[in-house]
Amino acid sequence: MKVIYPGSFDPVTNGHLDIIKRASENFDEVIVAILDNKSKKPLFNVKERKYMLKESVKDLDNVEIDSFSGLLVEYVKKSDTNVVLRGLRVVSDYENEMRNALANKSLDNNIETLFMVSKAEYTFLSSSIVKEIASFHGNVEELVPKVVNENLKEKYKNTYLED
Amino acid sequence: MKVIYPGSFDPVTNGHLDIIKRASENFDEVIVAILDNKSKKPLFNVKERKYMLKESVKDLDNVEIDSFSGLLVEYVKKSDTNVVLRGLRVVSDYENEMRNALANKSLDNNIETLFMVSKAEYTFLSSSIVKEIASFHGNVEELVPKVVNENLKEKYKNTYLED
Amino acid sequence: MKVIYPGSFDPVTNGHLDIIKRASENFDEVIVAILDNKSKKPLFNVKERKYMLKESVKDLDNVEIDSFSGLLVEYVKKSDTNVVLRGLRVVSDYENEMRNALANKSLDNNIETLFMVSKAEYTFLSSSIVKEIASFHGNVEELVPKVVNENLKEKYKNTYLED
Amino acid sequence: MKVIYPGSFDPVTNGHLDIIKRASENFDEVIVAILDNKSKKPLFNVKERKYMLKESVKDLDNVEIDSFSGLLVEYVKKSDTNVVLRGLRVVSDYENEMRNALANKSLDNNIETLFMVSKAEYTFLSSSIVKEIASFHGNVEELVPKVVNENLKEKYKNTYLED
Amino acid sequence: MKVIYPGSFDPVTNGHLDIIKRASENFDEVIVAILDNKSKKPLFNVKERKYMLKESVKDLDNVEIDSFSGLLVEYVKKSDTNVVLRGLRVVSDYENEMRNALANKSLDNNIETLFMVSKAEYTFLSSSIVKEIASFHGNVEELVPKVVNENLKEKYKNTYLED
Amino acid sequence: MKVIYPGSFDPVTNGHLDIIKRASENFDEVIVAILDNKSKKPLFNVKERKYMLKESVKDLDNVEIDSFSGLLVEYVKKSDTNVVLRGLRVVSDYENEMRNALANKSLDNNIETLFMVSKAEYTFLSSSIVKEIASFHGNVEELVPKVVNENLKEKYKNTYLED
Repeated sequence: MKVIYPGSFDPVTNGHLDIIKRASENFDEVIVAILDNKSKKPLFNVKERKYMLKESVKDLDNVEIDSFSGLLVEYVKKSDTNVVLRGLRVVSDYENEMRNALANKSLDNNIETLFMVSKAEYTFLSSSIVKEIASFHGNVEELVPKVVNENLKEKYKNTYLED
Repeated sequence: MKVIYPGSFDPVTNGHLDIIKRASENFDEVIVAILDNKSKKPLFNVKERKYMLKESVKDLDNVEIDSFSGLLVEYVKKSDTNVVLRGLRVVSDYENEMRNALANKSLDNNIETLFMVSKAEYTFLSSSIVKEIASFHGNVEELVPKVVNENLKEKYKNTYLED
Repeated sequence: MKVIYPGSFDPVTNGHLDIIKRASENFDEVIVAILDNKSKKPLFNVKERKYMLKESVKDLDNVEIDSFSGLLVEYVKKSDTNVVLRGLRVVSDYENEMRNALANKSLDNNIETLFMVSKAEYTFLSSSIVKEIASFHGNVEELVPKVVNENLKEKYKNTYLED
Repeated sequence: MKVIYPGSFDPVTNGHLDIIKRASENFDEVIVAILDNKSKKPLFNVKERKYMLKESVKDLDNVEIDSFSGLLVEYVKKSDTNVVLRGLRVVSDYENEMRNALANKSLDNNIETLFMVSKAEYTFLSSSIVKEIASFHGNVEELVPKVVNENLKEKYKNTYLED
Repeated sequence: MKVIYPGSFDPVTNGHLDIIKRASENFDEVIVAILDNKSKKPLFNVKERKYMLKESVKDLDNVEIDSFSGLLVEYVKKSDTNVVLRGLRVVSDYENEMRNALANKSLDNNIETLFMVSKAEYTFLSSSIVKEIASFHGNVEELVPKVVNENLKEKYKNTYLED
Repeated sequence: MKVIYPGSFDPVTNGHLDIIKRASENFDEVIVAILDNKSKKPLFNVKERKYMLKESVKDLDNVEIDSFSGLLVEYVKKSDTNVVLRGLRVVSDYENEMRNALANKSLDNNIETLFMVSKAEYTFLSSSIVKEIASFHGNVEELVPKVVNENLKEKYKNTYLED
């Protein structure tokens, strides 16, 4: 079975990486699909996010990094699978995920969304909290892959903190 | 009993319509009150939303469409009822609804809010998700009244998707 | 509009009474319907619960106390209304209430369930917590009507606490 | 990929069946594994539950019905897959499911749990609610497969309702 | 024990004040620390918020008002305590609070976050709802300290409502 | 500040121990108070639970193990502190904890309940799940203190699994 794992990955965290690794062990092929959401202002552009993801999964042979814009269902239709994979963390994620899974099914009945539960230590980890900590020059090295840590430092190196 | 059913209705969905129909069967009179929230940027202006609502409920004799701005409690005070009706869907709605019901009661102890539970198939339906799908030219005809479907198509007809 | 307010009322609390009072102000008639659940072991039998309810609402002219066993939908069908009223408190109640409202609708499409939100100070009040406190001779006089307080004391007067 | 779909199935509902059908379309093989929980008193014994499941899925070639007692992880270890499938419905299910998925992973790191979201109309459907309705001779034919409906009627035919 | 009670306090409500009073009775010293979040546009600036807080707690000898910008953990490190206090209200707060408490602990393992539960009548009270009501000239005198009520009136006195 | 940390501790888990350790670092004195609930059938009696707790905290000088029956508020009143400490894990715990904290405050306004958030990896750990796993001879050595692991093995050594 081939699965598409969509997300913003702005940037990829160790929580995402845990899902990708476990997916790569359990599915034949994993497409990590970066959503290029034109209406949101990301910290990293799609090219940067792709680079960091590629670096982070370079040891996983059956994982490919791609990107898409527009509706996920259209992207899935054009691919050679119908299975979407998502990670579940906190309860407040859950209703959004259900809503999306059901909305996608109503747009294309063939689409199937599978969920994996994040490891407990990643339950409260998100890209947003990583960016918030990094923006104040806090230490995120245990929360993200090495390449992301370096890029976050570079991104924020000229952000002087107010005193 | 006469009830006021307030909301943004930007645009009305089949979920709203289900509540309106059941309200019209159970209450003497139903006022659907469109909130004209000056601080939010709606997709449809109040006139458009009113038109689509009127079209959608034209067979329901005891339903009237109105609009208001400012505090709901002020609007209710000026009306000849004290009963507000709201639909309940997912758990994450629920605390907001409780907060609003209690805040309204603290502003005017006479106001009473009654809730109806959305039909299960509308549990995850919202105006936002309808607009998001329609903006990508996805098919929403089973999610909204016919007049809304047409107006959404018109609204987004010049939105060319990026490729 | 006439409404049926079903529940165990074992015993009635000030939270229930708040709902009953507000219902009596807003609806033409309120039937408080005590569920006689043969499979549960209540503290007070139906006769005692009925007595305490009658005492608690004796000043409310349009409130009647009744009891039923079996399915709520059957009881409602035999009555001259189709509207059920329930109070909503905490989030964990909410899904049960939705489940019941939808199950009842699937058994009889005419049944409509309306919800009222408990006053904030009663959000965490339940018959169970009242009984637990009273069983240890704790003071519940601010949590229940006077007649219930007296009956709880009587019920537990011979419960000597272990030392 | 082969998946194990464990549960009590006392009895199987249309919600379970929806998950089984979608699983059978998306996975190579589906083992429906009935938990024989010695400490609970089921309505149907394992043999009856197995029979009803077999009848309900007889058109699905890649679905097999089995049963197990004891820890799910032990059952999975003895099988030739490591993937467990579970359906997700309401929020209150969600934390239990996460807890179980994480507990199973802590017992055997190879076990992977995948989740599918129930169709919206089955969000509030459960074996318990089906049994409760059937015990009062309510109509559950739209909630369960035909064979289950018949067996429920048979089971409860001598349950005379109190009047 | 000395505790830091951080927040936006834009403006302080009776819910915050309830936490501060109870903290002042139970801890040796309470530092109320106003977050000066440069990326949000507050209604009241830090100086105004500090003034209103000082007025509201002037009878509490062991309460001090301070402000900080940047990461809370950095502020705590520079102080002479490691204990943060937060109030808990609704369920939807809870996951954010857990996320923050765990993120802070991952940044500095010495930091400990303690939580107090808001009084039931303040469960649904927030600075946002107070500002929304006040902006429409609604009455908030039972929701905020006197000095806040006056400052809100002053702030919004030139906000004429649309008719 | 002296705190009372009440619970069933049947048996103590690493999640409880994490709270006790952090409490012992932050408070002057910690009383772990085992609830002797006569109406529940525990796996370990109070003496056994006390022994395992004592063994688990023997290196913590300011931690004392005690037990009580009846209402927590009565136990607290007889002690020389008014502060109760509780751990918070999942959302479904949260409403129970709020309910208890508010009920205790309504019984004795002096009682204050403080909450600490469990470490993320213990979010889904409970005494019940430990007992369930151990009853099937599953491995719980990473979930409980060593002394508990041994006692669980002893307790269940004659529980032969059905085949």
